[in-house]
Amino acid sequence: MTLTEVARRAEVSPTTASFVLNGRLDMRISEDARQRVLRAAHELGYRPNLVSRGLRTKITHTVALVSDTIATEPYAGEIVHGSLAAAVAREHLLYVGETEDDPEVEARLIEHFLDRQVDGFVYATMFTRGARVPKRIQDHPLVLLNCTADGLAAPSVLPHEREAGRSAATALLDAGHREGIYLVGEQVPGVFAASERHAGINEVLHARGADLAGLLPCRWWPESGFEAVSEFLRSGRRPRALICYNDRIALGAYQALQEAGLGVPTDTSVVSFDDSDLASWLRPKLTSVALPHYEMGRIAVELLLSRSRGGHDGDGGGYKVVWVPMPLRERASVGPPSR
Amino acid sequence: MTLTEVARRAEVSPTTASFVLNGRLDMRISEDARQRVLRAAHELGYRPNLVSRGLRTKITHTVALVSDTIATEPYAGEIVHGSLAAAVAREHLLYVGETEDDPEVEARLIEHFLDRQVDGFVYATMFTRGARVPKRIQDHPLVLLNCTADGLAAPSVLPHEREAGRSAATALLDAGHREGIYLVGEQVPGVFAASERHAGINEVLHARGADLAGLLPCRWWPESGFEAVSEFLRSGRRPRALICYNDRIALGAYQALQEAGLGVPTDTSVVSFDDSDLASWLRPKLTSVALPHYEMGRIAVELLLSRSRGGHDGDGGGYKVVWVPMPLRERASVGPPSR
Repeated sequence: MTLTEVARRAEVSPTTASFVLNGRLDMRISEDARQRVLRAAHELGYRPNLVSRGLRTKITHTVALVSDTIATEPYAGEIVHGSLAAAVAREHLLYVGETEDDPEVEARLIEHFLDRQVDGFVYATMFTRGARVPKRIQDHPLVLLNCTADGLAAPSVLPHEREAGRSAATALLDAGHREGIYLVGEQVPGVFAASERHAGINEVLHARGADLAGLLPCRWWPESGFEAVSEFLRSGRRPRALICYNDRIALGAYQALQEAGLGVPTDTSVVSFDDSDLASWLRPKLTSVALPHYEMGRIAVELLLSRSRGGHDGDGGGYKVVWVPMPLRERASVGPPSR
Repeated sequence: MTLTEVARRAEVSPTTASFVLNGRLDMRISEDARQRVLRAAHELGYRPNLVSRGLRTKITHTVALVSDTIATEPYAGEIVHGSLAAAVAREHLLYVGETEDDPEVEARLIEHFLDRQVDGFVYATMFTRGARVPKRIQDHPLVLLNCTADGLAAPSVLPHEREAGRSAATALLDAGHREGIYLVGEQVPGVFAASERHAGINEVLHARGADLAGLLPCRWWPESGFEAVSEFLRSGRRPRALICYNDRIALGAYQALQEAGLGVPTDTSVVSFDDSDLASWLRPKLTSVALPHYEMGRIAVELLLSRSRGGHDGDGGGYKVVWVPMPLRERASVGPPSR
């Protein structure tokens, strides 16, 4: 895999691709082009030639990834993997510390990392939320990953959930849906993904004169999704389309539709969020908006390393939030509305 | 959650529980009791009181987990999580390094960790296999995780796949199955999980005068499992029971049975390996033999830390392999044979 191939796929020049993959955020490359290069490199499995680089630079630097927990979600590994890739590409090592949300553990981890003179911190949460960032690291190079902190100058790397909601709704509208569209999943106050996705969905539906037919509340797990959709179907109603808050709910929705003798997408279209492995394992394969954890990890570390060199201040006023695109993966679960 | 509750659940004395959770491998505690304590602590979410411990000991030590890749499998996060838990419980920090199977990257990571004077190495692979362990770390405290290396004195922590095969077959035999049992999944030469599970299955079946009715080869993925089972069903035959090499194959098998109008377990029983999240998401819930990645990570680090203190030599000759039990999680996919 060569840089040229990455550049070709990303539709940029090899020089631009090289700048992006070397983390040169100071080169006035559009965010869109940068994303295309990173995605192309990821999709093609491109890895920079570490050997030749090693001749020029010595590995001496370290970055600490401090997170609340890395094991509750299978996606978490992707964040670590993306962070590692970016660290290695910039000749850094990555320390991974897990606090299990215990301030005492967190404080001691951070002291330890400071003793070891890490170049900077990526402070990550597994669910997008507001975070209390420990005072001790606020004076060091710092990037927030999947969280925000009021009053801090540190940039945040967040998934673009609003846009994701728009994409999901657009997929249904483009297939001809206007009515009988239900949103499946609980609205938890303060849960960023839920409120942003919902807002994005409403924006797009309202703009085209449509509206959600209703909400089917359930926890974000297969069994709960199965029960919510089953109960709705028992009432005799037939949804034309379901927007599920994640792929797990969608699995439960598939099971409920199937047991009621309804076909996807012939009777009911389904669109979802996360693009976990599950999405491509279901029959028919599930159309889902991807959570870009690998990209988020990679971007956070890149941003950190460019900042800790005293780099960049973005479009004049410094970064505040880097919104990482959530691409729609179109598969086979969306079709025209049933009669 | 207190130590006493962990001890009660594990059916050992609090003293024994304390020794186990403090990694005292020198106390002549049976492997069985040790496993019960670790499992109970994991299941109950027990975390040692780090604050009071901190008064006695300072965090100064570090352990390096070097692995080929941590992102190809969702389970990988569990290995990291278990390793972290054991390291933190022993007042150590964990460095995680990923080599992507590139000897050059590996060599440089290791030099870096040695510069930082880590107390020892856990050398891990994501799939159980023989590994070439870099010379540079062979003289340091070292534990192999999920791999073996000929000619090295370092102990290996491996999942007990043979026993897992026995458990899967026993579950079917106990439900009354003797014939029409098919094994679903490819036999890849040199893949430890496949050959050991197969051997364990055969051992138990033969001991009870039974035998596999055949093999349905497929890759270890849902779609391939679906195709293998669908093709078999199209031939007009009906399996009484399927042993799937992993939960992903089992998902495909479920889909194939369902599309053919066959019920699980009324027409066909299904038993599987991994006990991934998927197992409890399927309808009916899938009986599966668990891959204990969390335990494996935890045990590897515990073993390393007890060794690097010059501890223990096991039952006289030093550890060679620690076989981590793979528990059978019985759910609803196994029933008596159909007529």
